[in-house]
Amino acid sequence: MEIYALKGHICYCKDKNDIQVAKDSFIVCENGLCSGIYKNLPEKFKDIKIFDYGDKLIIPGLVDLHLHAPQYAFRGLGMDLELIDWLNQNTFVEEQKYADLEYARKAYEIFVEDIVAGATTRACIFGTAHPQATLMLMEMLDEKGFNAYVGMVNMDRNCPESLCLANSETEEWIKKSSRLKNVKPILTPRFIPVCSDELMEMISDLQKKYDLPVQSHLSENLQEIEWVKKLCPDSEFYGAAYDKYGLFGGRCPTIMAHCVYSTDKEIELMKRQNVFVAHCPESNANLSSGIAPVRLFLEKGIKMGLGSDVAAGSSISIFYAMAMAMQCSKLRWRLVDQSLAPIKFSEAFYLATKGGGEFFGKVGSFEDGYEFDAVVIDDSKIKHPQKLDVKQRLERCAYLIGDKEISAKFIKGKQVF
Amino acid sequence: MEIYALKGHICYCKDKNDIQVAKDSFIVCENGLCSGIYKNLPEKFKDIKIFDYGDKLIIPGLVDLHLHAPQYAFRGLGMDLELIDWLNQNTFVEEQKYADLEYARKAYEIFVEDIVAGATTRACIFGTAHPQATLMLMEMLDEKGFNAYVGMVNMDRNCPESLCLANSETEEWIKKSSRLKNVKPILTPRFIPVCSDELMEMISDLQKKYDLPVQSHLSENLQEIEWVKKLCPDSEFYGAAYDKYGLFGGRCPTIMAHCVYSTDKEIELMKRQNVFVAHCPESNANLSSGIAPVRLFLEKGIKMGLGSDVAAGSSISIFYAMAMAMQCSKLRWRLVDQSLAPIKFSEAFYLATKGGGEFFGKVGSFEDGYEFDAVVIDDSKIKHPQKLDVKQRLERCAYLIGDKEISAKFIKGKQVF
Repeated sequence: MEIYALKGHICYCKDKNDIQVAKDSFIVCENGLCSGIYKNLPEKFKDIKIFDYGDKLIIPGLVDLHLHAPQYAFRGLGMDLELIDWLNQNTFVEEQKYADLEYARKAYEIFVEDIVAGATTRACIFGTAHPQATLMLMEMLDEKGFNAYVGMVNMDRNCPESLCLANSETEEWIKKSSRLKNVKPILTPRFIPVCSDELMEMISDLQKKYDLPVQSHLSENLQEIEWVKKLCPDSEFYGAAYDKYGLFGGRCPTIMAHCVYSTDKEIELMKRQNVFVAHCPESNANLSSGIAPVRLFLEKGIKMGLGSDVAAGSSISIFYAMAMAMQCSKLRWRLVDQSLAPIKFSEAFYLATKGGGEFFGKVGSFEDGYEFDAVVIDDSKIKHPQKLDVKQRLERCAYLIGDKEISAKFIKGKQVF
Repeated sequence: MEIYALKGHICYCKDKNDIQVAKDSFIVCENGLCSGIYKNLPEKFKDIKIFDYGDKLIIPGLVDLHLHAPQYAFRGLGMDLELIDWLNQNTFVEEQKYADLEYARKAYEIFVEDIVAGATTRACIFGTAHPQATLMLMEMLDEKGFNAYVGMVNMDRNCPESLCLANSETEEWIKKSSRLKNVKPILTPRFIPVCSDELMEMISDLQKKYDLPVQSHLSENLQEIEWVKKLCPDSEFYGAAYDKYGLFGGRCPTIMAHCVYSTDKEIELMKRQNVFVAHCPESNANLSSGIAPVRLFLEKGIKMGLGSDVAAGSSISIFYAMAMAMQCSKLRWRLVDQSLAPIKFSEAFYLATKGGGEFFGKVGSFEDGYEFDAVVIDDSKIKHPQKLDVKQRLERCAYLIGDKEISAKFIKGKQVF
């Protein structure tokens, strides 16, 4: 049994309304799980290894509930388009390149290096429609000790033919990838407009057979929603088109990215079936989609975390997603609906940790029994003339911390660096 | 006469609709002014000094038309408030500390170091209501070769008394600061709610006597606008309350920050009198103010640049302001007014360079005769698997470049580093 402690200023959420702070304290990791926070270590722990991080901040690893690894190559580019044009002109063009395993290796090495270096410890990731390249990505992440669900993307209409070829290889990809330790497969119908009924049935069968979770996109963009209405005239709302195939929560753990325009009925079903929202504020701004009603989801108790949605989002930093989530909720309050208050910092931090972490189980907090994901933040380069308390230093991180300031990272109790 | 050239990939705007790119080219600086861009240097320049920046990007220095230097200390903090509460609870509390010159020195050293290291070469800066501390800030910037207008802040009502004490010292501050080379004084009535008629008259007199420019805030927040209506019942619109004292453009060069809710009449007067808008998108999101109609201002030919508005904005990066300007204009298009198209990357780059630069004269472009402000960007750490052209590399900078990636900086022909 492995046991050790980190020492520093410890911050985490138990709930969305407050941030727990333990200044100059120890957090104990016992066999990969959180095992208490102490100002002074009790006698029984007197001989355990201590990692002393001095004046640094120690927080739960951040969780990214939605990003596209192959799109990392063109982050920050071609941002003058809306969703459907952006998919056709940027995304599908780039993703076709991943049929070439050498190109895929080069691109994924860059992505893996950067996400491992940052504050994110868990992610739900879209690959491409290529089983080999997706498996390669999974192996690369697994080897680094990064913890993720990764999906080979299924699609078979309204997109380039070369991205529709490998759907029949999905089961083999599942079998091959299921042997990995830290990275697990997740079923990934891209979104309704590119998935035929036959494809959805196939995915549904695989879901039942292998009991896998599902990730997809939902109610992101007005043009997309109109298109789904035409394609699925018998579905009462967008989410119903997934639910029809048992791919919308319930016994199938499900993440839906965006939910900018979810109707009352859609939200009701999400609530009933524990569908997770991946809130992706930067993406929703960059593609002119809108702003999701995060306050409403919080009030209704919808499960939710943050997503960078690279490359409709430009950055894989979940700190940046926290800042954008607060900023966009303020703009939505001001411009759209003053009955839904902006989200506060504690709520953004909650979403980035425990909120999204719940999709992985007991993840995203330092409460006893939670899986031990921790990152150590060195904010000493963000100078200030006045005294700041720990909570203030944490708040600044949302706006000012870059990936270079992560000093150490632990995932499920294993030190990544 | 000093003459030299920089070599690299040169990008700049002549107008807002296109970005000029000269790959692997030379830009010549002759006596502090731009003197031609050449693929091959002509014979007459064969002996001049060359700074060869290889594969790096060379762009005009960025211009920040609105920021508060003393607020840099609390950037990224206390963001859960709207304007008036934020001023009372955060800003005025912090700014009172600048009566203590030792505190001011400590704080301004941090600010000056960071702004000098970044891509900004010109700025219009608010100090505090303290003439000595403001003069110190000006001297520190001047010594580094940074080019700026800096204002001692005038206010005499609706704020802590200690910030109202030094208005009578404004003229002496003007005289003392006017001897500086790179940094010049600018009259700075904070905003109408904290300036009495008497104070405005005093500022108006100083404006006429010293022929100084003016900076202030305008139509930022709905609560503030209502307050101005009550305080100035005889002003037809907010801007008229400045115009009444000759402090709203015309013969008095003027920057007004925000203009989120400017009325048609206000915009008309701004146009007629060449008032510059400092568009501060991040600030307007953080304080739940709203989104300024940037497209409308562009269509009407209103003079405009970008402002970081630290610390209502968290970052002094004008690259970040470019990204936020695009993102917010997209959200405004989607949520408020679909007759006003989102701004494109070329327009954001224009605002960050030539748009704001115009307040300083022929500044912000590499056209012949423009003052030679240039920054060299090393984007090599933003890895990518595919080939990117120079314009794509520049677009990524808006989203991905931090201050660490600035390799060299020239202001008015002098190398800063």
